[in-house]
Amino acid sequence: MESGDLKIAWARQYMPVLASIRKRFIEEKPFSGMTVGMALHVEAKTAVLVETLAAGGAGVHITGCNPLSTQDDVSAALNTRDRVHSYARRGASVEEYYAAIDRVLDARPAITIDDGMDLIYRIHTERQDVLDSVIGGCEETTTGIHRLRAMARDGALEFPVIAVNDTPMKHFFDNVHGTGESALASIMITTNVLIAGKRFVVAGYGYCGRGLARKARGLGARVIVTEVDPRRALEAHMDGFDVMTMNEAAALGDIFVTTTGNAGIITGQHFPKMKDGAILANAGHFNVEIDVAWLASHADSTVHRDGIDTYMLDGMAVHVLAEGRLVNLATPKGMGHPVEVMDLSFAVQALSAEFIAKHGRDLAPGVHDVPSAIDEEVARLKLAALGLSIDRLTPEQETYMNSWAIGT
Amino acid sequence: MESGDLKIAWARQYMPVLASIRKRFIEEKPFSGMTVGMALHVEAKTAVLVETLAAGGAGVHITGCNPLSTQDDVSAALNTRDRVHSYARRGASVEEYYAAIDRVLDARPAITIDDGMDLIYRIHTERQDVLDSVIGGCEETTTGIHRLRAMARDGALEFPVIAVNDTPMKHFFDNVHGTGESALASIMITTNVLIAGKRFVVAGYGYCGRGLARKARGLGARVIVTEVDPRRALEAHMDGFDVMTMNEAAALGDIFVTTTGNAGIITGQHFPKMKDGAILANAGHFNVEIDVAWLASHADSTVHRDGIDTYMLDGMAVHVLAEGRLVNLATPKGMGHPVEVMDLSFAVQALSAEFIAKHGRDLAPGVHDVPSAIDEEVARLKLAALGLSIDRLTPEQETYMNSWAIGT
Amino acid sequence: MESGDLKIAWARQYMPVLASIRKRFIEEKPFSGMTVGMALHVEAKTAVLVETLAAGGAGVHITGCNPLSTQDDVSAALNTRDRVHSYARRGASVEEYYAAIDRVLDARPAITIDDGMDLIYRIHTERQDVLDSVIGGCEETTTGIHRLRAMARDGALEFPVIAVNDTPMKHFFDNVHGTGESALASIMITTNVLIAGKRFVVAGYGYCGRGLARKARGLGARVIVTEVDPRRALEAHMDGFDVMTMNEAAALGDIFVTTTGNAGIITGQHFPKMKDGAILANAGHFNVEIDVAWLASHADSTVHRDGIDTYMLDGMAVHVLAEGRLVNLATPKGMGHPVEVMDLSFAVQALSAEFIAKHGRDLAPGVHDVPSAIDEEVARLKLAALGLSIDRLTPEQETYMNSWAIGT
Amino acid sequence: MESGDLKIAWARQYMPVLASIRKRFIEEKPFSGMTVGMALHVEAKTAVLVETLAAGGAGVHITGCNPLSTQDDVSAALNTRDRVHSYARRGASVEEYYAAIDRVLDARPAITIDDGMDLIYRIHTERQDVLDSVIGGCEETTTGIHRLRAMARDGALEFPVIAVNDTPMKHFFDNVHGTGESALASIMITTNVLIAGKRFVVAGYGYCGRGLARKARGLGARVIVTEVDPRRALEAHMDGFDVMTMNEAAALGDIFVTTTGNAGIITGQHFPKMKDGAILANAGHFNVEIDVAWLASHADSTVHRDGIDTYMLDGMAVHVLAEGRLVNLATPKGMGHPVEVMDLSFAVQALSAEFIAKHGRDLAPGVHDVPSAIDEEVARLKLAALGLSIDRLTPEQETYMNSWAIGT
Repeated sequence: MESGDLKIAWARQYMPVLASIRKRFIEEKPFSGMTVGMALHVEAKTAVLVETLAAGGAGVHITGCNPLSTQDDVSAALNTRDRVHSYARRGASVEEYYAAIDRVLDARPAITIDDGMDLIYRIHTERQDVLDSVIGGCEETTTGIHRLRAMARDGALEFPVIAVNDTPMKHFFDNVHGTGESALASIMITTNVLIAGKRFVVAGYGYCGRGLARKARGLGARVIVTEVDPRRALEAHMDGFDVMTMNEAAALGDIFVTTTGNAGIITGQHFPKMKDGAILANAGHFNVEIDVAWLASHADSTVHRDGIDTYMLDGMAVHVLAEGRLVNLATPKGMGHPVEVMDLSFAVQALSAEFIAKHGRDLAPGVHDVPSAIDEEVARLKLAALGLSIDRLTPEQETYMNSWAIGT
Repeated sequence: MESGDLKIAWARQYMPVLASIRKRFIEEKPFSGMTVGMALHVEAKTAVLVETLAAGGAGVHITGCNPLSTQDDVSAALNTRDRVHSYARRGASVEEYYAAIDRVLDARPAITIDDGMDLIYRIHTERQDVLDSVIGGCEETTTGIHRLRAMARDGALEFPVIAVNDTPMKHFFDNVHGTGESALASIMITTNVLIAGKRFVVAGYGYCGRGLARKARGLGARVIVTEVDPRRALEAHMDGFDVMTMNEAAALGDIFVTTTGNAGIITGQHFPKMKDGAILANAGHFNVEIDVAWLASHADSTVHRDGIDTYMLDGMAVHVLAEGRLVNLATPKGMGHPVEVMDLSFAVQALSAEFIAKHGRDLAPGVHDVPSAIDEEVARLKLAALGLSIDRLTPEQETYMNSWAIGT
Repeated sequence: MESGDLKIAWARQYMPVLASIRKRFIEEKPFSGMTVGMALHVEAKTAVLVETLAAGGAGVHITGCNPLSTQDDVSAALNTRDRVHSYARRGASVEEYYAAIDRVLDARPAITIDDGMDLIYRIHTERQDVLDSVIGGCEETTTGIHRLRAMARDGALEFPVIAVNDTPMKHFFDNVHGTGESALASIMITTNVLIAGKRFVVAGYGYCGRGLARKARGLGARVIVTEVDPRRALEAHMDGFDVMTMNEAAALGDIFVTTTGNAGIITGQHFPKMKDGAILANAGHFNVEIDVAWLASHADSTVHRDGIDTYMLDGMAVHVLAEGRLVNLATPKGMGHPVEVMDLSFAVQALSAEFIAKHGRDLAPGVHDVPSAIDEEVARLKLAALGLSIDRLTPEQETYMNSWAIGT
Repeated sequence: MESGDLKIAWARQYMPVLASIRKRFIEEKPFSGMTVGMALHVEAKTAVLVETLAAGGAGVHITGCNPLSTQDDVSAALNTRDRVHSYARRGASVEEYYAAIDRVLDARPAITIDDGMDLIYRIHTERQDVLDSVIGGCEETTTGIHRLRAMARDGALEFPVIAVNDTPMKHFFDNVHGTGESALASIMITTNVLIAGKRFVVAGYGYCGRGLARKARGLGARVIVTEVDPRRALEAHMDGFDVMTMNEAAALGDIFVTTTGNAGIITGQHFPKMKDGAILANAGHFNVEIDVAWLASHADSTVHRDGIDTYMLDGMAVHVLAEGRLVNLATPKGMGHPVEVMDLSFAVQALSAEFIAKHGRDLAPGVHDVPSAIDEEVARLKLAALGLSIDRLTPEQETYMNSWAIGT
C-alpha cells in the first residue's frame, strides 16, 4: 500500500461510526448525482468522511482549510478514489490556496462542508455565480458558526447552513477531548518539556478550554484559567483551577494555550511580563489569538526551530509554537484531532449532509441546529460500536417524569 | 448564644454573596409590606436567606420541605427574629407536616419559595383560597420544575414561577459541587467505609451525577455510571467511567447512589443480584429512586441503625441509608449542602424573589427562567467576595466576535 | 442487639481479612494462656481485633489511647465477651486515663499493643514492676515508633517491639487512604463548608499528607503543601501541588491540616497572618501540631461549638477543630479510620502479636520491623477477599530478573 | 546555528540544575585529566550532561545505548566540543554498535556512565584489558542495576558502581513523571488515537507504572493494572485502578504498556485473546517485555508503518509500537524523557561521577547507593531554580522528633 492509503486504513479502523453509516449509504445512496464541495483539513480522518460520502453516491471535490494541515500523500490517495477530486497541497501559497477553493466551487457543489467557512464566504463574495447550485452547507467550527450567525443577522446568508459544531456531541467529544489531547500531545512532542509541576495557563473555559485544563492537570500541571465570563470563571474556580486575568497570569505561566476563538488574547501587553522560556500555543481557531505580529516587530532577534519560533525580548525568550496557528494541526509532528473524536464529528457531518440532501430545499436560509435526532443517532451508533448497553426509561418512569401530581 | 444562633452565625460567615445582597436590601427594602411563604429545609443556611428577605422588609413564614431535615434549634432561633415565623419541626408526622404548610399559606404569601413544590401544589389543590394573594413563586429543585412544566403544559399553573434550579449557577455549583460533596461526606460518616477502591455506582450523569462521579473518583473509587440518555452515557464513558445498565452494575457495585430525580431506579429487579453488604443511597430527590417498599416487603429480616436500615435477602445484607431519602440531608449526621453552595443558590433565590416583587405582576402564568442578569450578578458578587479578577472583552474583541468578514 | 454490638457487627462485615485470620486462630489458639494488654482507640473496629485475639485464646485487657476517642457502648459490649476486659471511658480525666492504663498493666500482659506507646512508656517509668511479664509489644503509630527508636538508641527499651506502623501495608493504606478520607469526612461534616475551590493547606507530604492532598484535590480543592524535606517538597511540586513555607501559606489558606507527627507546625507566628474564618485541623498525631495554647492565651474572645473552637484575633476568626486533637477521631461526629483500612492494619497487628507469642523470646530488646512475610500475607488475604487475581512470576522471569548475562 | 546545536540549546534552557553544577565545575575542575566513557541515548539532553562533565575537565568519549535512539545532528554537534568524542550513529548495525562501544573503551575511561550496563558488561567480558583504568561507574537504569547486583552477588563485579537509578530523585521524577509523560506523548502522536475512554492496561505498578497509570487516567483512560507483587497490586486497587491478571486484561484492553523491566510480560498466551486493533508498547526497558518474536512467527501477514508494526492473527490486527523497544525513545517522533526530568537525573549522574572521581578509589567493588547528600543537593538546587522556599525544622522540632519522654 502507498503511504496515503496506509494512513487512511489506520484511521478507518478506529472510525466505527462512519463505518456503520457507510454501510447504510452504500445501500441507500442518498447523494446519488450530487456534488459535495469540501474545505477541510486534508488528512487521513477526513479521507474516511470523503469515502463515506462518495460511497453514498456523491461526487466529492475537496481542498484544505489551512495552508499547513494538508498531508500530501493522503491528498494523492483520495485522487485514486472514484468520484473524488482533491486539490489540497501542503504549503500552498495564499494564491494557490484560493485557486484550489475555486476549483472546488467550479464543480458547482449542491452541498458545502466547511471548517472555517472558506467556501461559504467565497460563494457570498467572489463566487456568487455558484450560489444557485447550492442547496445548503455544513460548518465544522465554532468560529465559523459565530461568523455565519453574524452574517445571517445582517441578512447576508443566502442558503441554509447546519451548525455542525453546535451539537452536544461536538462540544463534549471533539472540543473537550479531541482538542485537549491533541494539543497536549503536540506541545509535549514539539517541546519535550515536562508538564508535571508546570504553571499551565489556559485562556478560555469553554468546551476546549475545560478539556485542556483537566487533562493538563491530569498530567500534573498547575493550571491557571483566564476568562471573560463570570460564570465560567467561577466554574473554573470551583473545579479547582486558579483563576486570574491574563495580565496576572503572564508573569506566572510556563506554558500558555489559547482556546477562545477570539482575537488578541495574548498581546504586547503581556509578552514583556513573561518568564524567560515561556511557551505559547494556540488551540482555539485562527492565528490571531496570540499577537505574533507584535512579537515579530518587537523582538531583538528570532530563532526558528521545527515548529517553534523563539522571539528574544530584552534577553528573555518567548517561544511560539506553529506560528500561532492551531498547535495540534500545524506543528511538524502534529496529527490533528484523535481519530475516534473525528469519527463522531464526521458522523454528524455525514448525517447532516444527508439531511441537507433530503430536506435542504425546505429549509430557510440561515444557520440551523443539527437535528437532535442526528446527534442522538451518532451517540447510539458509538455506544453500539463500544459494546456498551444503557438503561431505557420504563413507561412508569416516563409517566413519573411527566406528572405533577405524584410526590413528597 | 443559643445553639440555633451559633449555627446561623457559622453559616453566615461563609455566605458572603447573601451578605452583600442583604446590605443592599436593608437600604432598598424591596419587599416592604409583602409576605414571603417558604417551604425549604429549615437549617442554618436557609436561615441566612430568611434573614436576608426579612432585612428587605418581608414578613417571612416558613416550614420544612422534608420531615427529617428540620433543625429544631434553628427553627427556634428564626422565631426570635422580627417579622419571621417558622413552623418546622423535625420528625413531624404527615399530618403535622401539612398543617405547617397550611399555617404558611394562612399568612397569604405574595411570593412562594419552594423546594419540591409543596406550597404551589397545595395552593393549586386544597388551598385555592390563597391563589389571589400570590404574585409568583420560586422553585428550587429540578424535580419540582419538571413537574411545574408538566402542570403548565396542562394549563393548570395559575401564576408565574421562576425555575431557580434551571440556571447555570444552580447546575454548576449546587448540583455539581453541593450534592457531590455533601452526599459523599454523609455516606462516609454514616457508614465509616473506605471509598478508595470501591465500585461506586452513580445512577444518572446529569449535573448531580457527574459531580458525584468525579469526586468519588477523586477519593479513589472505581466509578460505574448508569444512564438512559445515549449522549450523556457516552460523555461518562469518555470522562473515564465505566458505563453499563443497572442490571449489570447491580452485581458489581459496593455503593450505589441515585441522582436521577426519577422513580424506580434501583428496584426488586436489582436487589437480589447485589453483593452482601451493598450500600444504597439517594442523592436525587424524592424517596422513590430506591424501591424501599419492595425491600421492606421482601426482606427476611431488618435491622435499624442510626441512618442505616439493613434488609436481609437470602442471607445477603442490603443497607439503605436515610430510608432512601436524600442522604446529605436525612442521615443523622447530615448537614445538607455546603454553606458556600447554598450562598450562591440562595442568592439567586433572593434576587429572583426581588424580581417577582418588582415584576411578577407583568409575568404570564407558567414557568420562567431566572433572568440571565440575575445569574451573572451572583457570579460577579461571588468572584468579588473571593477577590478574583477576570478579563473583560476589549471593543476590538467584541467587534471580532460579531464580524464575519475577518479571517483565515 | 445493643448499640455497641450493632456497631461491632457493622464493622465486622467490612473486615474480611481479620475474619480469615480469626477462623485460623480459632483452630490454632496461638495465644492460649497469654494476656494481651492494649491501649487503642476503643471503637467498633478495634473491637473486631480484640475479638480476633480473644478467639486465639488470649485474655485481653484494653483501655483507650485518647481521652476523646472511646465509644462507651462499644466498651460495654467488649465487657460482655469471654476473656475480655475494657476499662475505657469517653471523656476520662487525666487521672482516670492513667488509672485505666494501670488496670491493664495490673493484668501483667505478655504482649502489649499500643497506639502512641502509652503502655510501653508507663512500663518503663512508673510501672517497671510489669517488665518481667512482657515478652514484647506492638506499636501502631509513626510517632510512637519514632520515640521508641530514640528510646532504643538511648539503651532504654527493655523488650522487643514490632513497629507495626512501619510496613508498606500501613503506609499505603492506613496512612494514605485511611487518614486522608476520614480527615476529609470529619472536616466536611463538622464545618459544612465546601471543599471545591478552597485553598487547602497540607502540612507534611509523608504518607498521610500525600493521601490527604490527593483526595482534597479530587474533591476540587486547590492544595498547598508545606514540607521540610527538599525531596518530598519537589515530589509535591511535580504532583501538581503548590509548595511554599507555612509563613507564605498562612495568608492564603482557607483550611489547614497538619499531618507531620511533629510539634509547632502552626504557631503564633502564623495565626495572625490568616484570613478571617480560617479552619485548622490536625490529622498527624498529638495535639501539639497546632499551638492551641498560644491561641487560648492570645485570643480576644473564644466561642465553642460542637467540635469547633473559635478564637478571635483582632476581629478575625480562627477556627480549630477537635481542640487540635486528631480530627478524624476527636470531632463529635468523627468515626476514626475507615473500616477496611483498619482491617488491614489490625490484621498486621494480629499477625505481629502472634509472631511475638511464638518468637518474641528470641528477639533482642529494641524496635523490630514487621516480618515482610506478615505484610505480604495480609495483602494476599485482602486480594483474595476482593476476589482479585494477580500474575505470578514464571520461572523464566525469575531467571531473567536474577541474571546479568542476558540483554540488549 | 546547526540543527544539533539548536537542539542542545533548547534542552539547556530547561536544565537549570545542570547549569548550576556546570558553573561550579568550571571553577573546581573535579575531572581534570580524567576520561569519562559513556553509553547513553545520544540526544540533546545527554549532550548537556556531556558539556557539564567536559566543563569539569573531563575528556568524554560517548556512544549510544540503543540502536534507534541516537540523534545524528546532536552526535555531530558533540564532536565540535573540546575534549568530547561521540561515536553514536542512528540505525547502527549490531556490529557497528559494539565497535562504537569498543572505541569508547579504547580511550581507557576512569569513570563509566551506562544506561543498561553495556560498557560495564563489555569490560567484564570482551574487554577486560580496560579493567585497570576504571575507578568506578554509574548505571542509569533499574534493569542494569538489577543485573549488576546479580553480578556482584556472583562475585563478578570488579569495581564500584553507583546505582544512579536507585535514588528517590530518580524514582520520583524520572520514572514517575518522565516515563509516564513521554510514553503517553509518543503513543498519542504515533497512533493518533484518543486516550479518553480507552481501556489502558499498564503492566507493572512500580514507579514507572504508577506514573503512567495516573497520567493515563488523568487524560480520561480507564486503567487496568497487572502486577506480581500483592502489596503493589493492592495499592493499585486502592488508588482506584482495576487489577487483574494479564490473561484477563488481554481480552479487555485497547492499549497495553509494559513497565516491568522483566521479560515475557505479553506473550503468545495473550495475543490471540486481544481485540482487533489492540495497541502494544513497551515503556520498561529491553525489547523482551512484549514477545515480538512470537508475533513475527505466528502472524498471517504484517504491515509496517512509521513506528507501528501490524501483525494479523486470524483477521485481527495487533499493533506493536517501536518494534517493542522503548516507546518514548524509539518511535520516529519520540524525543525521550522530558528535559527537566533528565536535568534531575543527569545532575545525580554528574555529582555521582564527581563522587567517584574524588572517592572511588576508597569504595569496595560492588553496587553502591547514591550518597543521600547528593540526592538532597539536587533537590535543593531544583527548588532554588524554581524559586520555591520550604520550611526548616526548628531546634525545638528536632528535639521533639528525637525525644521519647514528651507526649500524650
